[in-house]
Amino acid sequence: MPPVKKGDVKNVNPKKRTNRIIKKTTKSLVPTGPKMKKISPPAPGVIRIIPLGGVEEVGKNMSAIEIGNDIIVIDAGIQFPDEDSPGVDFIIADTSYLEERKNRIRALVITHGHLDHIGGIPYIINKIGNPPIYTTLLTAVIIKKRQDEFPHLPKLNIQVITDNDRLKLGQIPVSFFSPTHTIPDSIGIVVGTPFGNIIFTGDIKIETENEQPVKSEEEMYGRLAKEKTLCLIADSTNVEKPGFSRPEKEVQENIKKIIANVKGRVIVSTFASLFDRIIFIIKASEELGKKVVVEGRSMKTNVEIAKELGILKVKRDTIIGSDIMDEYPDNKIVILATGAQGDAFAALVRISSREHKNIKIRKNDTILLSSSIVPGNEKSVQKLKDNLSRQGAKILHYGIVDIHSSGHSHQDEVKWVHSILKPKFFIPVHGHHFMLKVHADIAQLMGLPEKNIIVPDNGMIIEIADRGRKIIKRPEKAGNRLVMVDGLGNDNIKEVVIRDRQMLSQDGMFVIIAIIDTSSGKVRKSPDIISRGFVYLKESQELLHHVRQLTRKTIEEGSTKMHPINFDYLKNNVREEIGKYLYQKTLKRPIILPVLIEV
Amino acid sequence: MPPVKKGDVKNVNPKKRTNRIIKKTTKSLVPTGPKMKKISPPAPGVIRIIPLGGVEEVGKNMSAIEIGNDIIVIDAGIQFPDEDSPGVDFIIADTSYLEERKNRIRALVITHGHLDHIGGIPYIINKIGNPPIYTTLLTAVIIKKRQDEFPHLPKLNIQVITDNDRLKLGQIPVSFFSPTHTIPDSIGIVVGTPFGNIIFTGDIKIETENEQPVKSEEEMYGRLAKEKTLCLIADSTNVEKPGFSRPEKEVQENIKKIIANVKGRVIVSTFASLFDRIIFIIKASEELGKKVVVEGRSMKTNVEIAKELGILKVKRDTIIGSDIMDEYPDNKIVILATGAQGDAFAALVRISSREHKNIKIRKNDTILLSSSIVPGNEKSVQKLKDNLSRQGAKILHYGIVDIHSSGHSHQDEVKWVHSILKPKFFIPVHGHHFMLKVHADIAQLMGLPEKNIIVPDNGMIIEIADRGRKIIKRPEKAGNRLVMVDGLGNDNIKEVVIRDRQMLSQDGMFVIIAIIDTSSGKVRKSPDIISRGFVYLKESQELLHHVRQLTRKTIEEGSTKMHPINFDYLKNNVREEIGKYLYQKTLKRPIILPVLIEV
Repeated sequence: MPPVKKGDVKNVNPKKRTNRIIKKTTKSLVPTGPKMKKISPPAPGVIRIIPLGGVEEVGKNMSAIEIGNDIIVIDAGIQFPDEDSPGVDFIIADTSYLEERKNRIRALVITHGHLDHIGGIPYIINKIGNPPIYTTLLTAVIIKKRQDEFPHLPKLNIQVITDNDRLKLGQIPVSFFSPTHTIPDSIGIVVGTPFGNIIFTGDIKIETENEQPVKSEEEMYGRLAKEKTLCLIADSTNVEKPGFSRPEKEVQENIKKIIANVKGRVIVSTFASLFDRIIFIIKASEELGKKVVVEGRSMKTNVEIAKELGILKVKRDTIIGSDIMDEYPDNKIVILATGAQGDAFAALVRISSREHKNIKIRKNDTILLSSSIVPGNEKSVQKLKDNLSRQGAKILHYGIVDIHSSGHSHQDEVKWVHSILKPKFFIPVHGHHFMLKVHADIAQLMGLPEKNIIVPDNGMIIEIADRGRKIIKRPEKAGNRLVMVDGLGNDNIKEVVIRDRQMLSQDGMFVIIAIIDTSSGKVRKSPDIISRGFVYLKESQELLHHVRQLTRKTIEEGSTKMHPINFDYLKNNVREEIGKYLYQKTLKRPIILPVLIEV
Repeated sequence: MPPVKKGDVKNVNPKKRTNRIIKKTTKSLVPTGPKMKKISPPAPGVIRIIPLGGVEEVGKNMSAIEIGNDIIVIDAGIQFPDEDSPGVDFIIADTSYLEERKNRIRALVITHGHLDHIGGIPYIINKIGNPPIYTTLLTAVIIKKRQDEFPHLPKLNIQVITDNDRLKLGQIPVSFFSPTHTIPDSIGIVVGTPFGNIIFTGDIKIETENEQPVKSEEEMYGRLAKEKTLCLIADSTNVEKPGFSRPEKEVQENIKKIIANVKGRVIVSTFASLFDRIIFIIKASEELGKKVVVEGRSMKTNVEIAKELGILKVKRDTIIGSDIMDEYPDNKIVILATGAQGDAFAALVRISSREHKNIKIRKNDTILLSSSIVPGNEKSVQKLKDNLSRQGAKILHYGIVDIHSSGHSHQDEVKWVHSILKPKFFIPVHGHHFMLKVHADIAQLMGLPEKNIIVPDNGMIIEIADRGRKIIKRPEKAGNRLVMVDGLGNDNIKEVVIRDRQMLSQDGMFVIIAIIDTSSGKVRKSPDIISRGFVYLKESQELLHHVRQLTRKTIEEGSTKMHPINFDYLKNNVREEIGKYLYQKTLKRPIILPVLIEV
């Protein structure tokens, strides 16, 4: 694959849906504000910062920085749906503020290639006027691969940059740095202003040795600290976790030791997006004289990308197909697979349920689940473990051995960053409100006055005003509608549809069809009933019999006194009477749909 | 309330549903076996042990021990529904084996008063012939309170015992011991056989000090070890966790310190079922000169029970109503509330969403979430924390400070129990298959040969045969149907209903009603469409227009050539054509229900 300059498009099917959850949860207390239609560009000397997504959730990260006549957008992520959005593909940030100002958008800058930072691009890029996308090479390749799945969209204008580049986007000077994360080519963004720099970290962790940041981290953040930090905008994902995060190096060495020492095959399953770890595992296996079988679409894609870009250099025959792996002894085989979250159709899950063509679990297999469990996936992961262990495999997971570490700073790393950069103002991003609040508390602990910190909501319009002397939030909001992508590019799904799905999933639906003779007001024949997801109809004949009688009675009691017949009134009566009856008999409240047909 | 001897019944509404989840997960590989109809009672010298529930999940614990003509049932729990059982109230064990042998059931023995051990009683007790229930006083009171919610059921025959009692249930000698758990009056069960004892632990943890079991534990397990342990049947819930579990004492002291030191009010939220902790918090608050406000139905009930049984002794005015709490200074108030799981309608959740009549969050409030997060509740808990922190409360949870500990043994406690009891045979129970497997591995590590361990599935029929010399599993299965309680005592819900709910929750439903003139085969008027949970119809007029046209075309192309009209054939055509069209336009697959009406 040639390196990407400008995106071009191929014919690939749009991506299908993933896992979903439904559950009743507590209502949210996020405040809303007046609309943003009338907000003019910021006055001279004012810097406007708008977190559009990712500050009331983990996911759909997106922010905008607006100075004078120029807007820079940072990241365009997706969030995976949960109990509040059943059946939905994913959720993206509300971009209406940007849509109304698309002529002034100079760039979309992407910090790194994870879906919570790039996944929204196909859905928003047109709406915001298809601005040039600035990002590093690996990220550019990943964005392009994803864009290929949307053949109906126009070409992307991707500008590949390095962390050494200095750009002027409109009138805004922008430079970069390369923080540690779990994917190479991650960048942080430095926006120059007359009053100091705005530093946007992106997702970061700090590489440490013996709970001490390593020299390269000290040097990089030291360089940033040479100029005044007007405002720090930083990742809060793991800020609730005490101490330092486990160094990735340690995790990798632990995995290598296991690969070196086990007797049989090793199957390592991890997030395909953890490029650094995947690359390490392949290289380590090669060093140990083992062959690597790569399984799972996203894992194959990412290994291919890493090879093509030269980030992964291996011998020709280190990576082999699963079809020939049985030509090697078991202890020479390492399988690298997707599926550690137990997601249906992922490689390890197909292996665990004996659906994989070439790979069957054997008694001496050792399986490494090198990932944490994403909330909501507990049950799938439990099933995965159960199935694998039923077939005799030995399973190691991060609850048992140290074979996973997150890519986000823990508290002590966060404190260290604050202590080096000494920002004047601080805005925590990337996380739920409570996480941001914890991050704000840490900033205060590090000496920042409360008035210099703003804990944002999605769509909050923050301004550094008075020539860099104060930070305020405007009363207007830049839109914080829940934008759900559901099916074919439909990002307009309404909450009523979601509510119906939630109700249907609990108690099902119940259609009653009655034919009414308009002249007599009588019901012809016995009403028909169709029901799904409510009770098992074949064993509920008595219930259905009573519903038919009650329907007829309800209709005829109304209709015979009515000239002409008010069908809406009758329908409501039927809905109410049948609803009451069904609840009384079953304690369930299916959605009741009366169909009254006039003949 | 008088102490319970025999259950009597009051008029209270049956309990309403709780949280539910839906998600696509991996299929399970649990083997099935031949049916159990023809299995005769065990031969002389054979002990039959049947784990009926709780060995492929955490919840719905139920086991049976069968010797000669006598069957003892142990526990009758519920499991809360998850992504595999949307809309369902809960899941109970398959009791068909017991139903077919109810004349030989001598007792239902209950180990303790948690729902995963008692919750199934109202649903199974009649089916298994309403045998006497043997349990301790507190457990008896809790069972009776719950039974009161099912006024249509006959009286329970509850026999209150103490851990000193020795009974003969049929010909089976049974004695008890009192393991440590999180609720007082927990018992373990010792079943005497000529070949040694069968020890059934129930849910246990070991009380420790400095990672050393305390003297009372040593004495109790030492007493048990004086007789030969033929078979140990033990809790596996936390067996994946290394080391010792945090002592409850430590947790309680930490909570007390916080209550003593904070400036404002303290709100402690925990599981209402954690009697020991709740009792401690009330007593500690009293010692510190504070008043306690008890909030939440189950919390109030359990505090009442504890007071009535004399396990909780407090001054008259220690517990006060929320209506008068503002008469005291903030630092004299401790609120004990349900809702740490973020479950809608629970006290803390109503407080957090400003729906509680008397309690509003204040800036100086400190909130202790003294519980772990039950898998599936992550999002609700996150929202709870977000809402509380938006109102200025300080939140402490078990990820930040040590204010929670589980009631189940970690690995080192498990090892200690094995080392003391030195069982000949071992059956791990209470947990998913993988947990049981880990427990079996520990037993092997402690010296037990693999052939002396059986990792059971629900309904597996295990026999200790050959006069205590070997343990085997029979090829027949004692039934392991998924029994779901859904609505009004309906425990017969079919999997097809659940599948429909899952489909409805993802893509909704789509009803098309067409009236067909049987003489001409033509569609009269334009077909009607009703849809829920699919797309927002008001903004999909073009789609609906095409569906109407396509329906008419599909029907008339078929019907005009048909005499008489085959309506099933037409319906299938419509379902297929409309399904294809909708998928093509939306990438969604609603349940399509064609209604063809002949006139």
